[in-house]
Amino acid sequence: MNNKLTLAPELEVTDWLNRDAPLKLSELRGKVVVLHAFQMLCPGCVIHGIPQATLIHELYNNNEVQVIGLHSVFEHHAVMNKDALSVFVNEYRLQFPIAIDKPTTGKDIPVTMEKYQLRGTPSLVLIDQDGNIRLNHFGRLNDMQVGNYIGRLLSTGSNINDINRNNSSKGGPEIGKYDTNGCII
Amino acid sequence: MNNKLTLAPELEVTDWLNRDAPLKLSELRGKVVVLHAFQMLCPGCVIHGIPQATLIHELYNNNEVQVIGLHSVFEHHAVMNKDALSVFVNEYRLQFPIAIDKPTTGKDIPVTMEKYQLRGTPSLVLIDQDGNIRLNHFGRLNDMQVGNYIGRLLSTGSNINDINRNNSSKGGPEIGKYDTNGCII
Amino acid sequence: MNNKLTLAPELEVTDWLNRDAPLKLSELRGKVVVLHAFQMLCPGCVIHGIPQATLIHELYNNNEVQVIGLHSVFEHHAVMNKDALSVFVNEYRLQFPIAIDKPTTGKDIPVTMEKYQLRGTPSLVLIDQDGNIRLNHFGRLNDMQVGNYIGRLLSTGSNINDINRNNSSKGGPEIGKYDTNGCII
Amino acid sequence: MNNKLTLAPELEVTDWLNRDAPLKLSELRGKVVVLHAFQMLCPGCVIHGIPQATLIHELYNNNEVQVIGLHSVFEHHAVMNKDALSVFVNEYRLQFPIAIDKPTTGKDIPVTMEKYQLRGTPSLVLIDQDGNIRLNHFGRLNDMQVGNYIGRLLSTGSNINDINRNNSSKGGPEIGKYDTNGCII
Repeated sequence: MNNKLTLAPELEVTDWLNRDAPLKLSELRGKVVVLHAFQMLCPGCVIHGIPQATLIHELYNNNEVQVIGLHSVFEHHAVMNKDALSVFVNEYRLQFPIAIDKPTTGKDIPVTMEKYQLRGTPSLVLIDQDGNIRLNHFGRLNDMQVGNYIGRLLSTGSNINDINRNNSSKGGPEIGKYDTNGCII
Repeated sequence: MNNKLTLAPELEVTDWLNRDAPLKLSELRGKVVVLHAFQMLCPGCVIHGIPQATLIHELYNNNEVQVIGLHSVFEHHAVMNKDALSVFVNEYRLQFPIAIDKPTTGKDIPVTMEKYQLRGTPSLVLIDQDGNIRLNHFGRLNDMQVGNYIGRLLSTGSNINDINRNNSSKGGPEIGKYDTNGCII
Repeated sequence: MNNKLTLAPELEVTDWLNRDAPLKLSELRGKVVVLHAFQMLCPGCVIHGIPQATLIHELYNNNEVQVIGLHSVFEHHAVMNKDALSVFVNEYRLQFPIAIDKPTTGKDIPVTMEKYQLRGTPSLVLIDQDGNIRLNHFGRLNDMQVGNYIGRLLSTGSNINDINRNNSSKGGPEIGKYDTNGCII
Repeated sequence: MNNKLTLAPELEVTDWLNRDAPLKLSELRGKVVVLHAFQMLCPGCVIHGIPQATLIHELYNNNEVQVIGLHSVFEHHAVMNKDALSVFVNEYRLQFPIAIDKPTTGKDIPVTMEKYQLRGTPSLVLIDQDGNIRLNHFGRLNDMQVGNYIGRLLSTGSNINDINRNNSSKGGPEIGKYDTNGCII
């Protein structure tokens, strides 16, 4: 057991797309959960983040890795509403479940985004089989790095302390670099 | 212990580039070894394989992952000799150690290529920290899949039985598909 | 003079972005006009069409080539309204003038789209220095072909009969092929 | 007639690939000639230049545009000999005629390269229908710019003075920028 790990807070969601019943993180224990936070009009999400989430969804077995899109709108709320998102999801043929982050009364930043302290979109959050947050990354990560993180979690589950601390990556310029297409809060 | 695993045979090499002393697999125990077999005039190697090997070399810490290029010439031997390879490695600014596979008397296929039963170039061989072959793949693999395999090995070392058997990947059309640019024996 | 050429009908537009005064085709005589029809939630537009229009805008001198974006919404009108488009244009940092095609009462297809008989989005319409339509293409064209057409018009103006008939292009599989990301009426 | 234009000097060539009889520029009057100078081990040629030459070859009608590869070796002559080039051309499935630039006794730079005063590889030389040099560019040009130049020549032939002087391109950062992968003399 490792005191440093943080249990991923439950998603607070007003609606789901591509999904009849809501997904609860507490019911996904045993799987790696890939939470991809995006905004439908954020270029970095459309060009990099969403294709990467789609690749994860296609590459991994749904029994082991659950991809969840989280539409966390923190600007231009009126034009990125549920109806617009539904069209977007349909036009881009996204297949994985997508949660609509719950608006916060009187604030731009929605509830789940605030709880996870996301810095903007796209953000990638990896949650291990015990429900702990193992990565919380804003901006662009290359595919090899993402595959590395997920592969690591799939092999070890809760037996490693910290995916970042033990991480063998040197973190070159392409890894986690700030992508100018990302949208910062 | 798993009887099914095969110990990676030692490389049989006539020369090294980017390296003073030869690398022996037996001296790399404790590291994951990424063996990238290529031919300098194989388009699939130049366009996909070598950039991927370079990315692995840049992404991972050399203490944990050792990339080795293996120049396994099985056709047009005269024009892919050591002098030509040296120019190629210099022009493409490759930084990782590159072994020149030992020619087999009277045969086109060089010794190490034969030992590993490679089907052509590019081929990617992953060797775990105990020296066992865990993946032997001909053709193109996407970066996420390669990152997944390496991350898996880094976390578990010899504690998993078979990277392929336990593999959570569904293996979609992009994964391990035959790349027309690959050169088959 | 060539009887076969069609004078480009004037744009019917409810509003302009990136532009104070409306642009009239009749006032653009002497320039090549590149009309790029798109929908902000059409993946083929976002991924191929808009970057190509941006490249044309950056590459050519504004005195000779005028790029105009035409937002021709023929589906999901409610979520691709002016407010949404404004956010889109701002987020994607589009610099060229963008016209909002005028809705047709009781029909999905807007007025200018109907007049030009566009088949969907993205569509590229080239108008010569005399105001004649010289190309009306639905789907993806590669950059070399587009540069070829524009260069041809810049050199000859109205002295050639038909850009397509005289066109030296063989039209291989990449040229004008139907792009699955295109949105057809 | 324009005194400023330079007649393209005849190619001095030791051998041709993909071609039985030699091509003489003097016999290509009436066509636009695209001369693509490269070295088979120059990364900028392999990654950008040769795919672009291939696209030109595929896009235009051979009656109007003649692509000629010019293998102008100015370094590492021993390993970029005719045998090596033949393998390269075959492996990369190049279809257009390729001339081997004639070596200069006692100098690294071959004869045709010297005559054309090329600065390195890849270089793109455009020759109009009257045999005049209209563009002589070292490094990377984007496809749209190349299409623009060729389209311009196809329309006007010898009726324009100078493709560069009349050129409507603003020449942004991507156009003609020095490509670090280019090989300079």
